[in-house]
Amino acid sequence: MIDAVLFDLSGVLYTDDDPIPSALQAIDRITASGMPVRYITNTTRSPSASILKKLEKMGFAIRKDEIFTAPLAVKKYLIEKNLSPYLLIHPDLEIEFSDLKKDSFNSVVVGDAGTAFTYENKNTAFRLLEQDCPLIAMGMNRYFREKDGLSLDAGSFIVALEYAANTQAVVIGKPSPWFFRTALQSVNCKAENAIMIGDDFEADVIGALDAGLQGILVKTGKYKTGDEKKIKGRAECVGDISLAVDWILEQ
Amino acid sequence: MIDAVLFDLSGVLYTDDDPIPSALQAIDRITASGMPVRYITNTTRSPSASILKKLEKMGFAIRKDEIFTAPLAVKKYLIEKNLSPYLLIHPDLEIEFSDLKKDSFNSVVVGDAGTAFTYENKNTAFRLLEQDCPLIAMGMNRYFREKDGLSLDAGSFIVALEYAANTQAVVIGKPSPWFFRTALQSVNCKAENAIMIGDDFEADVIGALDAGLQGILVKTGKYKTGDEKKIKGRAECVGDISLAVDWILEQ
Repeated sequence: MIDAVLFDLSGVLYTDDDPIPSALQAIDRITASGMPVRYITNTTRSPSASILKKLEKMGFAIRKDEIFTAPLAVKKYLIEKNLSPYLLIHPDLEIEFSDLKKDSFNSVVVGDAGTAFTYENKNTAFRLLEQDCPLIAMGMNRYFREKDGLSLDAGSFIVALEYAANTQAVVIGKPSPWFFRTALQSVNCKAENAIMIGDDFEADVIGALDAGLQGILVKTGKYKTGDEKKIKGRAECVGDISLAVDWILEQ
Repeated sequence: MIDAVLFDLSGVLYTDDDPIPSALQAIDRITASGMPVRYITNTTRSPSASILKKLEKMGFAIRKDEIFTAPLAVKKYLIEKNLSPYLLIHPDLEIEFSDLKKDSFNSVVVGDAGTAFTYENKNTAFRLLEQDCPLIAMGMNRYFREKDGLSLDAGSFIVALEYAANTQAVVIGKPSPWFFRTALQSVNCKAENAIMIGDDFEADVIGALDAGLQGILVKTGKYKTGDEKKIKGRAECVGDISLAVDWILEQ
């Protein structure tokens, strides 16, 4: 029995600035079925308002309260713990954290900072970790797909800092079980009755299985041949989001 | 019985541009004793000629053939394997590799590239690794000491690439047993009769022990309180190079 569906965004609904063929119709169908849906993303190069605007522009009918982003989850965590973070994040994301205090840093937050991953910035982060500041990760994704190929995502920079400072990050985005469950709480659904659709076999599918959900891996976005063989558990692998929605509606 | 001594350079003989107090005299004493010595370094921000010049300028009487650098060992490896490398290295080190072919890359070499560790350069390296190019590491050091504090060394950037591309680097510098043994072969000494003096408990001391040597950790350079507790085996820990030489000459 499936009571709620979680979708990843990039690589599932769209790649770069274009919707994946059949994704618009797939979202319309799942919405029309009355099934509660949430969108959970580790995309950390844009604030949530920009993501929503981008989805609207592409023609997706998605509400603000349906989207859960790793940066917003991190922000909530920082406020709860009263932390003042050194932000190693993408310049476009800084606006999401503009109202947080950022003096006398007592923590380090890392997202996909892109070109802001300079040696100097990483060394600043490293020296704070050496002072026992906690390391907070927006995700552990290895790579994401761009128009011209795969590109390094936040995960690799986080393991670099973990290695240098001999520490371990607190992961707030996917594959943190807490992140999946927070999204499900908003639709009052238990993990075992929910399913996650994603193109990242680790962060999306294995992460979901570890959190008690079912999972569907789609062969769009960053999918690489054979990824499905690395998954063990209650998971399917289908061509794209439209086939994933078909599978769900058939259950 | 000790028949040969290997010294690390940075943090043992000098920090930044200054010799460590008593290091000049310590090297003079070990040289006068007739004990064969070699200097093995993972320093990858300067070519070997510059390192030698720097040592001379500081007053150390060290010959060119006594120095084994990770970059020169990597160069030998590349030539032997007929590899054309994408070099993710410090701009000052490029001259060491200027006579190698560097077109249609079929391998990736990573040293402590410093500010050349841009997102773009790392992504270029990552995409080559995704094409199954081998990853060759000049060392796995986590950090080194600079005037204003500890700084990120090559090791953290290598684990980042290993993680993203799901691969494992071939390590050519310390702690590769091959690197220690190559230096010892030049003085015709077996590993069990040799000792390594270093400030890095992992690359220098644990590396040496794993290669069958003895080791001495010195409390200068990048040494951090308690590092000696992380070492198991035939190793000593003393204040500095002068006390290390005392210990060796007493054996």
